[in-house]
Amino acid sequence: MALDKVLAQIDADLDGSLERLFDLLRIKSISTNPAFRDDCARAAHWLVAQLSGIGFDASVRETAGHPMVVAHAKARQADAPHVLFYGHYDVQPVDPLSLWHSDPFAPHMVEEGGDKRIVARGAADDKGQLMTFVEACRAFMNHGGLPCHVTILFEGEEECGSPSMPAFLAANKDELRADVALVCDTNMWNRNTPAITTMLRGLVLEEVVIDAASRDLHSGLFGGAAINPIRVLTRILSDLHDDNGAVALPGFYEGVEELPADVAAQWRALDFSESDFLGEVGLSVPAGEKGRSVLEHVWSRPTCDVNGIIGGYTGEGTKTVLPARASAKVSFRLVGEQEPHKILESFHAFVRARLPADCKATFVSHGASAAISLPFDSSYLQKARGALSREWGVEAVMAGGGGSIPVIGNFKRDLGMDALMIGFGLDDDRIHSPNEKYELKSFHKGTRSWARVLDALAH
Amino acid sequence: MALDKVLAQIDADLDGSLERLFDLLRIKSISTNPAFRDDCARAAHWLVAQLSGIGFDASVRETAGHPMVVAHAKARQADAPHVLFYGHYDVQPVDPLSLWHSDPFAPHMVEEGGDKRIVARGAADDKGQLMTFVEACRAFMNHGGLPCHVTILFEGEEECGSPSMPAFLAANKDELRADVALVCDTNMWNRNTPAITTMLRGLVLEEVVIDAASRDLHSGLFGGAAINPIRVLTRILSDLHDDNGAVALPGFYEGVEELPADVAAQWRALDFSESDFLGEVGLSVPAGEKGRSVLEHVWSRPTCDVNGIIGGYTGEGTKTVLPARASAKVSFRLVGEQEPHKILESFHAFVRARLPADCKATFVSHGASAAISLPFDSSYLQKARGALSREWGVEAVMAGGGGSIPVIGNFKRDLGMDALMIGFGLDDDRIHSPNEKYELKSFHKGTRSWARVLDALAH
Repeated sequence: MALDKVLAQIDADLDGSLERLFDLLRIKSISTNPAFRDDCARAAHWLVAQLSGIGFDASVRETAGHPMVVAHAKARQADAPHVLFYGHYDVQPVDPLSLWHSDPFAPHMVEEGGDKRIVARGAADDKGQLMTFVEACRAFMNHGGLPCHVTILFEGEEECGSPSMPAFLAANKDELRADVALVCDTNMWNRNTPAITTMLRGLVLEEVVIDAASRDLHSGLFGGAAINPIRVLTRILSDLHDDNGAVALPGFYEGVEELPADVAAQWRALDFSESDFLGEVGLSVPAGEKGRSVLEHVWSRPTCDVNGIIGGYTGEGTKTVLPARASAKVSFRLVGEQEPHKILESFHAFVRARLPADCKATFVSHGASAAISLPFDSSYLQKARGALSREWGVEAVMAGGGGSIPVIGNFKRDLGMDALMIGFGLDDDRIHSPNEKYELKSFHKGTRSWARVLDALAH
Repeated sequence: MALDKVLAQIDADLDGSLERLFDLLRIKSISTNPAFRDDCARAAHWLVAQLSGIGFDASVRETAGHPMVVAHAKARQADAPHVLFYGHYDVQPVDPLSLWHSDPFAPHMVEEGGDKRIVARGAADDKGQLMTFVEACRAFMNHGGLPCHVTILFEGEEECGSPSMPAFLAANKDELRADVALVCDTNMWNRNTPAITTMLRGLVLEEVVIDAASRDLHSGLFGGAAINPIRVLTRILSDLHDDNGAVALPGFYEGVEELPADVAAQWRALDFSESDFLGEVGLSVPAGEKGRSVLEHVWSRPTCDVNGIIGGYTGEGTKTVLPARASAKVSFRLVGEQEPHKILESFHAFVRARLPADCKATFVSHGASAAISLPFDSSYLQKARGALSREWGVEAVMAGGGGSIPVIGNFKRDLGMDALMIGFGLDDDRIHSPNEKYELKSFHKGTRSWARVLDALAH
């Protein structure tokens, strides 16, 4: 049976596949900082070389931002289904660098409690994950070819809101449309149980800048008389939540439905400990809307968070300055039918309504996407679930997801494709944090899982 | 008459005195940042060399922080009064550097609207000001000697709250005690009218750090469930003022008296335009306690300001991080009998009362000093006021002051000395801001003013 040979090949080539992953992890493809522009391009070209090497028709496609990678390969049989695999080669910034135990771009293996882990920025998010699919394809190519027609789309702007994606999809609809999209950028349920994510929150990223005096002032000479933009900003931000932890923007909960009874029941039956989830990161009390579970907080409820704030003197020691400017980066996670543009309008109005005399607010948009969900009765979902369950020996969980993958909304709206989100990350992978890691087991069995999923989708 | 010769000498040596000032301005003596420790020591040694060169018995005195400079010179007549002159050679940090039009430590002269200005960090605060006194002493030394016994004390920690000063004064009481202290670190009333500052607000500088989760989290995976320390901090800070602009700390206004009727009348009679004062820095509406004048806001009322805030991702672009920590630098300006330690206790309790579960507050103290004031009937005050009025051709104003000079409280409490605060800065000198400047006229006529004041105090 061809699948057995493919799985054996994956096992035999594990060291080779790790070497290739490490090569990719060494490239500093941080997309949010223009200083790493060339590194992003380098990652794209490296991927094209890899894909071409195993028989894909692959190319780098320039955009206004970082380039896309597009690659095609035919299945052994002409009537096989056609999948579009999506991943992203860009990674998050590494600061605070001082908290890393090693160079974020010098990937290496560490062993902890019997588990081997790949440590590097991007090890899990998303280089390690996307390479599981590439390596599964490599194994098929070495044993007679792919069971599905495969198109691959890698982008380099996922971590900055995918600004070039909508136009790219619109311009290349016919080339990119497939029967179903496969995405590897999510987590397992736990270290032994795979998961397919069927709901994803949307994401609105907005920066607000408050300007007051025409220059920084001495707080001794002007303090008391001159308006302080930090005071204005902190007051606005503190109004964003009410005393019950709900978001206080007018109209924010429009389009948010309660969870269907059957899904709620499935979630309640999951082996999930709120105290373990929070305890893992040093916390004990859920901080979200009162009266709701932590799984609701992170999967099915919309949120607002301040991801960054800065104003005045923030160096060592003190400076009695009354600053001219203060700013904050605010993000909203959306669910259900919440409309990103309405949330933005409400936020802008909320800020402006709270501006005192002499203050000006400027907004910088870093992306806005709606929530998405996959129908539970999809045949692709059922086939993939069976394949995962066979690889891991336990039933795959159908999960909600807290993070956002904006492109999945575009796949649905612009190309009419559902997406299967299957990933092998773990909650403790420290993605977006110092010392990001990816389990060797995730990488190895993740590659095997994709081989099984591709095989199952073709039957 | 000796004074005329001294004044003529000051006029003739203006270029030489500017060259010396520029040498001092080139030294990057930023006291709040440990990276500039050696530069601070260099400034102290440069001053000792200058003072020794004109006949002072001068020395550098080490402290736990940056060194002091102490120098002594006898008057021509043994029964002359003894003055202690105080200034500080340390300067504020220069950020944001991008807003400077030239290197902050490359002093140079610019001409604007007929006025010549010295541009550099420290040009006004306080290197330019302290050199007016040194140059006045130099002129006397070249013409038969000083009219008063003079002790000079320069410190290098004024911009970081003078942490070494109390112990240094206690250990050197007998050496430093004089009949009256002279301090050159304040402003004129306007470009043509000198001022003696008779009231100074105290200053409490406190940093608050809020810690929540044990590491930075992904806001998609944890947002909603995990407490965000930025949200906690902004809520605390926004509670610090009530809707009328008053400080909401319990007990904050204890020890704050209304202004005496005669002083209030004098202030009302001053030629002061609130709209010009605020308009100069791009503002129009006073932001302090409602129902009070801007002069009250900046001279006689206590205030609270956030001088800096930081948390989460503050680089370019975005990062969907839920940070583990957020912090703010908060300062309180004190008046009357407000007690610094009570304000601190109240602030700590205020923060702790607002901490939700899983959050911890840590405080870092950067100094605390009470307000001080000079008796209006002091004979030194009257003599100095006459001398200033003769130099400038208009009556010197007796002013309040918004900034803080902590050492003046120590002079009063520990050495029993009143201080005459006479300075030649202007409100638009941009001290603590980019493009700090000092008027050439301030430097030149300031030097002449000190010659007249020293001469007047001796009669």
